[in-house]
Amino acid sequence: MKELPLSKAFQFIEPGPVVLLTTSYKDKPNVMTMSWHMDVDFTPLIACVVSNGDYSFNALMKTKECVIAIPTVDLIKKVVDIGNCSGEKTDKFKTFGLTPLSAKNVKAPLIKECLANIECRVVDATLADKYNLFILEGVKAWIDDKRKEKRTFHAKGDGIFVVDGRTIDLKKRMIKWQ
Amino acid sequence: MKELPLSKAFQFIEPGPVVLLTTSYKDKPNVMTMSWHMDVDFTPLIACVVSNGDYSFNALMKTKECVIAIPTVDLIKKVVDIGNCSGEKTDKFKTFGLTPLSAKNVKAPLIKECLANIECRVVDATLADKYNLFILEGVKAWIDDKRKEKRTFHAKGDGIFVVDGRTIDLKKRMIKWQ
Repeated sequence: MKELPLSKAFQFIEPGPVVLLTTSYKDKPNVMTMSWHMDVDFTPLIACVVSNGDYSFNALMKTKECVIAIPTVDLIKKVVDIGNCSGEKTDKFKTFGLTPLSAKNVKAPLIKECLANIECRVVDATLADKYNLFILEGVKAWIDDKRKEKRTFHAKGDGIFVVDGRTIDLKKRMIKWQ
Repeated sequence: MKELPLSKAFQFIEPGPVVLLTTSYKDKPNVMTMSWHMDVDFTPLIACVVSNGDYSFNALMKTKECVIAIPTVDLIKKVVDIGNCSGEKTDKFKTFGLTPLSAKNVKAPLIKECLANIECRVVDATLADKYNLFILEGVKAWIDDKRKEKRTFHAKGDGIFVVDGRTIDLKKRMIKWQ
């Protein structure tokens, strides 16, 4: 994994792909599947929803740290299966053959098999009790720039997913941001 | 536009497409382009970020109402251009040839040319001052089910967009949700 400038990390969240979220609570690493997340600013600040029914909710509340890892379409079946079992009963890294790598600024692990990883700290849990909503700050980001498969995928609900298709470059029309 | 059950509305937000957000403040309809949004629950509750530099921020704060409209790829150039000018100076519905339709429960208009429309009320603005983050509740939803083009598109930052590609059905693996 090569360092990715933090200023580029928002680009992996903005398209709204299904992601993995890792935590490490009491030295036990865990990973969940997440598709409710969004950019909040370019720092990046990122908001996400982790249900209080999920094993990761408590880990996030207690440690205030996580990693958002970006899987590509070759991992889709694993990613769906990770979202269909609980870290309470399963060592998911072992079960799904994922390789945890040490992060630099947080205890939660990076995932070697993913395209990108964003180390995050919880900076605001004001709405966690009411809506399960956390505000995270990305503090370090990584990319596997040698990976050939770069297509991510998006959840449409009820087990239906859509894979990234054609790319369209409309840079020239972005006159407000130049 | 045909009524869409509210329980299905989250499916248009979860994949993370670029959307349009309409408001109506002092009887003046406006529309902005948005790609920072996420589901918060299946009601649906939806979170979104509308910059306080955007003309729509004030409209949203004052009226507490909006519509999230889902454009498809045939509208991509218009959608980008809508995001590159301000409602302060431009009548965007007129300029971009969009047809406002009356919503049922809010004053903000639906957009006829879009695949789906979700009428929303702001139910929580606790984090609006600090992060420009609003919690919306979908109160009515609509779909144009006769539309052939259903592919949405996603922002990757810096004027690059990715269009929906192949659909993958993994319903059988969703054992936790059956």
